Amino acid sequence: MNNLPKNLIWESEVRDYELDSQGVVNNANYFHYFEHARHLFLHAIGVNFMAWQKQGFDFVLVHADITYKAPLYSGDEFFVTTRLDYQGKLKLHFIQELYKKPENILTCKFICTGTCINSERKPELPEELIEKLKMIMEGQK
Amino acid sequence: MNNLPKNLIWESEVRDYELDSQGVVNNANYFHYFEHARHLFLHAIGVNFMAWQKQGFDFVLVHADITYKAPLYSGDEFFVTTRLDYQGKLKLHFIQELYKKPENILTCKFICTGTCINSERKPELPEELIEKLKMIMEGQK
Amino acid sequence: MNNLPKNLIWESEVRDYELDSQGVVNNANYFHYFEHARHLFLHAIGVNFMAWQKQGFDFVLVHADITYKAPLYSGDEFFVTTRLDYQGKLKLHFIQELYKKPENILTCKFICTGTCINSERKPELPEELIEKLKMIMEGQK
Amino acid sequence: MNNLPKNLIWESEVRDYELDSQGVVNNANYFHYFEHARHLFLHAIGVNFMAWQKQGFDFVLVHADITYKAPLYSGDEFFVTTRLDYQGKLKLHFIQELYKKPENILTCKFICTGTCINSERKPELPEELIEKLKMIMEGQK
Repeated sequence: MNNLPKNLIWESEVRDYELDSQGVVNNANYFHYFEHARHLFLHAIGVNFMAWQKQGFDFVLVHADITYKAPLYSGDEFFVTTRLDYQGKLKLHFIQELYKKPENILTCKFICTGTCINSERKPELPEELIEKLKMIMEGQK
Repeated sequence: MNNLPKNLIWESEVRDYELDSQGVVNNANYFHYFEHARHLFLHAIGVNFMAWQKQGFDFVLVHADITYKAPLYSGDEFFVTTRLDYQGKLKLHFIQELYKKPENILTCKFICTGTCINSERKPELPEELIEKLKMIMEGQK
Repeated sequence: MNNLPKNLIWESEVRDYELDSQGVVNNANYFHYFEHARHLFLHAIGVNFMAWQKQGFDFVLVHADITYKAPLYSGDEFFVTTRLDYQGKLKLHFIQELYKKPENILTCKFICTGTCINSERKPELPEELIEKLKMIMEGQK
Repeated sequence: MNNLPKNLIWESEVRDYELDSQGVVNNANYFHYFEHARHLFLHAIGVNFMAWQKQGFDFVLVHADITYKAPLYSGDEFFVTTRLDYQGKLKLHFIQELYKKPENILTCKFICTGTCINSERKPELPEELIEKLKMIMEGQK
């Protein structure tokens, strides 16, 4: 992963309000973690989420596949890796993994597909974004 | 409370994802409950939150005072009462209470002050809203 | 679905705090909706989540697949259907769908696999639960 | 604040899922921020929240007073200060402030009172905790 931008890796720690009555991070909060990491990734490659929104482009998830391999407890520290796996003209694919520190145990795997919705509510990736994604894909090889 | 609109009372139940590791509803979720009840109240008196937003008016809280008297557990049913206690030209005051069923135990009390921010980011209650609030205040007496 | 317990269908409405800056329900909240509907389902068939927890059995999700077909906006009403699709000795499969009212548009589809973790942190479905699930499966045919 | 433990100051950044449809951090999330900062504070002075829980002591909030002075937007960085203001035998008082970076604008002020509930559901601060709090209070002068 040496030639990837540094901020593809987002580090954080469990916050107690994220725990549920079983004392583990509630499943829904992983969506929060992965969303935040994706936004940081997009920001890092120069995609300003809010700026696109003002131009009428909404980034949306259309599908996600999530595998829970181990729980996270109070005080646990972790990091999330985000890798772009772009394929089509209308869709973005991301592969994200959450690792628990310090043993770096794969705790949760997230594969998702997103698209951009234009002001007419139709899927459309802006040209500028496609160019950026191509460059990222080259850089990731 | 007989002459108040029916939807001042909002009934719901605890959802397990709202619990924290102590097995009780996390403090922050009461803010969610009271926000939802206030929005239903405003909607009931004809204040369309989203419509005002499009015209450049954002409703915001400036202060809240919350007293936790008892916990809520998994499966608990409750209702929230919302009463307008309007005082100034720039501010709205609400008193809200959450009661646990079926004994109707006062579980949480919430007193909050909100205002409206216009497109220049200054506090301003739209005339139309002030008129509506006056009518509500009359009806509540 | 006539011979299924009534509470397999859970009705609710969007709460404004569930919206994100795009004005639509944030993806993570669908996990909340589906979790609550599953817990109601389990409760309806006599599975007391909290009681099992005290006996050392934790119900956990191991996999989820979620497809977002349309957004939910402020004020939208919806219902969630929950159907058990049990297959193995160690796993539970659920198929859940969220429909937007009043047109009953399929808005989100959720397929998930759960298991039970015993006090030794190993997957184990309690006998009593397996018996109940078999009865439910019979009833659903 | 020089003679206070370093981790009284918790730094973080807005995560987009914390925004609501107004594009600002939803009021309830400040409760999350302040809770996390308090837990870090307690952890820093050697109070293990989860360990006390296992011994039958639950830390609970009984009152909070929150003043919202300015909004937080996407990408905003901030820090939270947590100061103990202990007074009674049964209660803990905290004063917490959230500052927006880089101008260090006071954005939100939080004053809260907590207590400890023993296994008989009565307020009781464990002796060990009272000793620690006294030491902290001395150190803060």
